[in-house]
Amino acid sequence: MTETEARRRTDYAYLRAVPTRWNDNDLYGHLNNVAYYEIFDTVINRFLIEEGGLDIARGPVIGIVPETRCRYLKPLRYPDVIDAGLAVARLGRTSVVYDIALFRQGEDDAAALGHFVHVFVARAAQDRTRPIPRRVRSALARIARAPEED
Amino acid sequence: MTETEARRRTDYAYLRAVPTRWNDNDLYGHLNNVAYYEIFDTVINRFLIEEGGLDIARGPVIGIVPETRCRYLKPLRYPDVIDAGLAVARLGRTSVVYDIALFRQGEDDAAALGHFVHVFVARAAQDRTRPIPRRVRSALARIARAPEED
Amino acid sequence: MTETEARRRTDYAYLRAVPTRWNDNDLYGHLNNVAYYEIFDTVINRFLIEEGGLDIARGPVIGIVPETRCRYLKPLRYPDVIDAGLAVARLGRTSVVYDIALFRQGEDDAAALGHFVHVFVARAAQDRTRPIPRRVRSALARIARAPEED
Amino acid sequence: MTETEARRRTDYAYLRAVPTRWNDNDLYGHLNNVAYYEIFDTVINRFLIEEGGLDIARGPVIGIVPETRCRYLKPLRYPDVIDAGLAVARLGRTSVVYDIALFRQGEDDAAALGHFVHVFVARAAQDRTRPIPRRVRSALARIARAPEED
Repeated sequence: MTETEARRRTDYAYLRAVPTRWNDNDLYGHLNNVAYYEIFDTVINRFLIEEGGLDIARGPVIGIVPETRCRYLKPLRYPDVIDAGLAVARLGRTSVVYDIALFRQGEDDAAALGHFVHVFVARAAQDRTRPIPRRVRSALARIARAPEED
Repeated sequence: MTETEARRRTDYAYLRAVPTRWNDNDLYGHLNNVAYYEIFDTVINRFLIEEGGLDIARGPVIGIVPETRCRYLKPLRYPDVIDAGLAVARLGRTSVVYDIALFRQGEDDAAALGHFVHVFVARAAQDRTRPIPRRVRSALARIARAPEED
Repeated sequence: MTETEARRRTDYAYLRAVPTRWNDNDLYGHLNNVAYYEIFDTVINRFLIEEGGLDIARGPVIGIVPETRCRYLKPLRYPDVIDAGLAVARLGRTSVVYDIALFRQGEDDAAALGHFVHVFVARAAQDRTRPIPRRVRSALARIARAPEED
Repeated sequence: MTETEARRRTDYAYLRAVPTRWNDNDLYGHLNNVAYYEIFDTVINRFLIEEGGLDIARGPVIGIVPETRCRYLKPLRYPDVIDAGLAVARLGRTSVVYDIALFRQGEDDAAALGHFVHVFVARAAQDRTRPIPRRVRSALARIARAPEED
């Protein structure tokens, strides 16, 4: 999301449908700004679990979040079904920067763009960074935009 | 949910998949008791909108909620996908009692049972009950367990 | 909440202020039915932590929830501050039934009544009930309506 | 939050206590990244309502959100009470950029820093920007860091 160009569905290797919920809508009749982050979190962790084998309940390494951002481009509303696109903008040794876009079904230009960072740490000592687990790393590399850094 | 018998998928005429979200899980590793009600609300309103043509943004009649209940039978966990089953337990002139069950995908016995009541009122004067709109009523009658009351 | 009589502030030994949040309001301009349960959960656990010394992060015994209910009597709206009253309706050996009421500040008749059950289980084996921890039990007994059962 | 310097309580003219909720905690034992945005939204709107007289239910002008960001510096946990500090980083004719910090009670260095933008639009035509209402603008000017822009 550091780039300002428009995002389209083909920019995202991983796309999953996420239905909205009644209480995502706020008083003003559209998705509350907070709900977007629930969707980001949900799609990213689903990717890590299903593609990277991350064990969120017992694995020794967990991803914590030092920074998130969202730009809201077009309103979304329950009962919209959203297609969430996920790509890796930067893959480091212990951290990853995700680039996320939300699309209304049937539309090709993004309704929202997200920036989300994970730092991997020991579950038991969350102030100690850990290398991204091997299988998670392989999955992330498959949806990365650019060559891996060290 | 006044009945204590077990519920199965075939007890529900309307069944829709609802994926869980990351933040549905709480500290204890399973869906928080609150998240179930988000799912109830979401499935019921989706039914009213898609099957009954309810206009949640501008329609003159809205459904407000005098009572809800949930019995939690088996734990659910993100990233489970839930199948939510909806039936009408009682269909009155201005109110409806829903009977809801949540199933983990692949399981036939309910993980949770919900009881949820809607009273229809004027959007502009929410203390005045209104007859259930005709098209909503027809939809509700299609998933009702018993003959309509007056 | 099995009783139908009105509830007043003096019916609750433990009363704590809970400010509403922006996104508690839904499209219809008042607190969504789901938000009430967030407040129930928050007040009950605060009581267990502060009065009963429950260690939600590491304690060997945790409270899981087999049943919840809410009756909504009068609308509440962000930015209302709510006073949540907590009492114990039934105190068993391994379980407790709470009776909760939400009051708008400045009002003495309840806007909502909650019924919430905790069963205490081993954190590591959540299908095994455990006696309510001694210090938690003492705290619960202090806000109990009736003599303890065995 | 474009500035990287540390933030302290004295950097914020408006400070309000916000108790955390049980379900703000996620599986990893601390506040979920999403919960911070609920708190931002809640404190900003409380300021607009109480200090600026904004009528969120019926006023002709509403604030919509084109961008939000959060940097997470130290973990927060339910049942922490948070002090949320609010300042105005930039006050335009139709938009405002807020600078927010969350402090644990008893601590003077921020646990999280937020960046949150409001654009004021007509309630009935949300694609049309409107000047910030006069009384809201006066309130915002009182907590602004720098001279107003035009």
